[in-house]
Amino acid sequence: MLIEQYISSRRDQLLQRLFSLLAIPSISSQSEHKPDMLRCAERWAELLREAGADTVDVMPTKGNPVVFASKNVNPNAPTVLIYGHYDVMPVEPLAEWTLPPFQPQIKDGHIRARGADDDKGQSFMHYAAFCYLVENNLLKHNIKFLLEGEEEISSPSLEEFMTANKELLAADIILVSDTSMLNADNPSITTGLRGLAYLQVDVHAAARDLHSGIFGGAVANPVNILCSLISRIQDTETGRILIPHFYDDVDELSADEKALIAQIPFDETEYLNGIGARKLHGEAGFTTVERTGVRPTFDVCGIWGGYTGEGAKTVLPAEAHAKISTRLVPHQNHEKIAQLIEDYLNSIAPDCVEVKCTSLHGAESYVCPIQLPAYKAAEKAYTTVFGKRPLPVRRGGSIGVVPMFERVTGVKSILMGFGLESDAIHSPNENFPLDMWEKGIRTIVEFHSEFDKI
Amino acid sequence: MLIEQYISSRRDQLLQRLFSLLAIPSISSQSEHKPDMLRCAERWAELLREAGADTVDVMPTKGNPVVFASKNVNPNAPTVLIYGHYDVMPVEPLAEWTLPPFQPQIKDGHIRARGADDDKGQSFMHYAAFCYLVENNLLKHNIKFLLEGEEEISSPSLEEFMTANKELLAADIILVSDTSMLNADNPSITTGLRGLAYLQVDVHAAARDLHSGIFGGAVANPVNILCSLISRIQDTETGRILIPHFYDDVDELSADEKALIAQIPFDETEYLNGIGARKLHGEAGFTTVERTGVRPTFDVCGIWGGYTGEGAKTVLPAEAHAKISTRLVPHQNHEKIAQLIEDYLNSIAPDCVEVKCTSLHGAESYVCPIQLPAYKAAEKAYTTVFGKRPLPVRRGGSIGVVPMFERVTGVKSILMGFGLESDAIHSPNENFPLDMWEKGIRTIVEFHSEFDKI
Repeated sequence: MLIEQYISSRRDQLLQRLFSLLAIPSISSQSEHKPDMLRCAERWAELLREAGADTVDVMPTKGNPVVFASKNVNPNAPTVLIYGHYDVMPVEPLAEWTLPPFQPQIKDGHIRARGADDDKGQSFMHYAAFCYLVENNLLKHNIKFLLEGEEEISSPSLEEFMTANKELLAADIILVSDTSMLNADNPSITTGLRGLAYLQVDVHAAARDLHSGIFGGAVANPVNILCSLISRIQDTETGRILIPHFYDDVDELSADEKALIAQIPFDETEYLNGIGARKLHGEAGFTTVERTGVRPTFDVCGIWGGYTGEGAKTVLPAEAHAKISTRLVPHQNHEKIAQLIEDYLNSIAPDCVEVKCTSLHGAESYVCPIQLPAYKAAEKAYTTVFGKRPLPVRRGGSIGVVPMFERVTGVKSILMGFGLESDAIHSPNENFPLDMWEKGIRTIVEFHSEFDKI
Repeated sequence: MLIEQYISSRRDQLLQRLFSLLAIPSISSQSEHKPDMLRCAERWAELLREAGADTVDVMPTKGNPVVFASKNVNPNAPTVLIYGHYDVMPVEPLAEWTLPPFQPQIKDGHIRARGADDDKGQSFMHYAAFCYLVENNLLKHNIKFLLEGEEEISSPSLEEFMTANKELLAADIILVSDTSMLNADNPSITTGLRGLAYLQVDVHAAARDLHSGIFGGAVANPVNILCSLISRIQDTETGRILIPHFYDDVDELSADEKALIAQIPFDETEYLNGIGARKLHGEAGFTTVERTGVRPTFDVCGIWGGYTGEGAKTVLPAEAHAKISTRLVPHQNHEKIAQLIEDYLNSIAPDCVEVKCTSLHGAESYVCPIQLPAYKAAEKAYTTVFGKRPLPVRRGGSIGVVPMFERVTGVKSILMGFGLESDAIHSPNENFPLDMWEKGIRTIVEFHSEFDKI
């Protein structure tokens, strides 16, 4: 049976299975969802057993469990390990969702739910391809699945698990579908990931909120000071990050690299319309593709302090908080950068306040060489399905586990992502176009076929 | 009967009456409390009727009603108008209250509730004094009460009401107890109030929250930009406000004025311990008493944007918001200042974001000359009760109605406040010491007696 026929005859069943995963609010960063993590892992295990995996285990880690499954067809054939994650991002601001985030449904040709793309929808494409290959006896190499529940919080338990289970996870190549393509008409494969250093900054000035009329002007305002600290991290005019030694390990782009990046199609109007922004804004001297792919960035992801309710409350807040992040490029070490940020903020903070920095998240960057045979197999698979050779692109996101795999097991990953920018991952109204989902499944099936020819 | 005897025999009854006001959550800035505003006004009216006022009315305005009451004893005698407000500040952050804010009680010698000081507790002292004077036939002049329900939101309806009811409100002097003293051992009378301009600043960058890895570096981050805008309002080093023309109408202090202010006792250690702050911080070249009394200030009262929940969410927020305020000194016009702030922010805002400023609150400043006969009467009353001559002090708070009375009716106000800094007004755990409350009642009774001698 051809994969196209398989998908059309099994679409409803496959979608029902995917929906059973999407319906579980497995938000790893919020502790009240702890029970949902186990539920989601067990549901994945159930599905993998139904698909015909030999071994399926929900394995404990120091954090959320991982789901491991394998299908061994030939001890002399290579092994492909498929990595995905079953945890999702928080759904706040909830009011902006037009459909409930954990009641998955198809609407206007899109799968709609938190996790529809990132990463339940994307990792499920590998599951669907696996079902097809097993049922039709087309599997010529061995397959392993590793699904973790802590990707969105920086995979804090996975390295320990990986180190303790090197043999179990042994593979020749790793496939990860947790990235997006340039757009629906321009397939691309992500060949580089940015790293990440994410910190919380807490500024304390007094023991309690104070009357701004009585104390204002005499006592430090922690919000005023936090804003001043943040404003000194980046030159908003040039976009240049002002932390000493921040750029020390950043490679300067060669003219050749700049020329290669310039080939990547980019439509400014479409880009701005897609996100409802009025104007591009970024580091001077770089294009948008460079800014999001090969340059580090600084973003405040959240800020809060004082009175944020209706109307006017005249208060001098006691404290102020921000969650700040920098995206990092190859050779920037996230631990070193987090330390540079902390040292810098401490060095510029006035002594009328207490400033505390806490690292909440960190990830290394990653580069995949396009000469890799498995990359070539992926390239052929995309070309067959999309009718166009996919461009290799270095993209903005961070997936900590990809550089971790390389460091711990020595195995490279191919980032076969099928997401689109309009999927609204990490945002309200996350979705995934059904036709991209089907093309993704077909591309993965093609990959396995091409991989056997290597 | 002496007032001391009266208080000790009637303490429980008076406190029960006060508690019936404190139990009503009359928060004027939060629209869900609209019904509580009317309930509180009607309860005040009931109490004034019970105390023997001739006329008592709950009078509509375009906003919350005002309570008006009068007791006319002699058409040839002067009239004292007592102003107070029955609305209170919001109670957020609620988690920091050790007792529920609207279940008033006496604990450790303090009245504890939102409004215990500001202003139900303080305005009730005038009510208690009035009860005493009426019951003991000691009233030689006429008394009027005006209690409003919108003081904490800048009295938006009172000027129209005042203009329409000039005759009803005609008086020779106005008493307002809505301020605090230097401390329990150093009585003082507030002779100047700062004005206020309070705005909300909204910064919009995109139509929805974005993935900071995919879009970070290419699109404006509204929190980064809001922090930058705020940091450019004030030089955090010198405390100087950087808005062009902001200081144009501020009087420079003469050496004489500086010397007078220097006489006001100030204990830095006690001040810092009282609020749990580690260090003073304010405008260079001025003392703390000058900074809080005669100098304008800039404070962010609240800020919010992006993800503020648990853990690390990598998001590029679509919008960011702040509530900002400046305290103003005599001759600074709050409308002009609000416009200067808006113009300045618009002039420095980059065009990759939309910046919107909305004025939420405004108040003029006020000065009371210490040569006023009624001021002298108040001074004598304090001296009798506290055993010390009260110092005239210009203080930080803003009470919009005081300059409004002067502008509309031409009548000056005496700010007979009995609050202490430890009362935590506008903060969690608001309270009022019972002994200050009793001394306040006695001082007010003394005032009426001294006033008859003018």
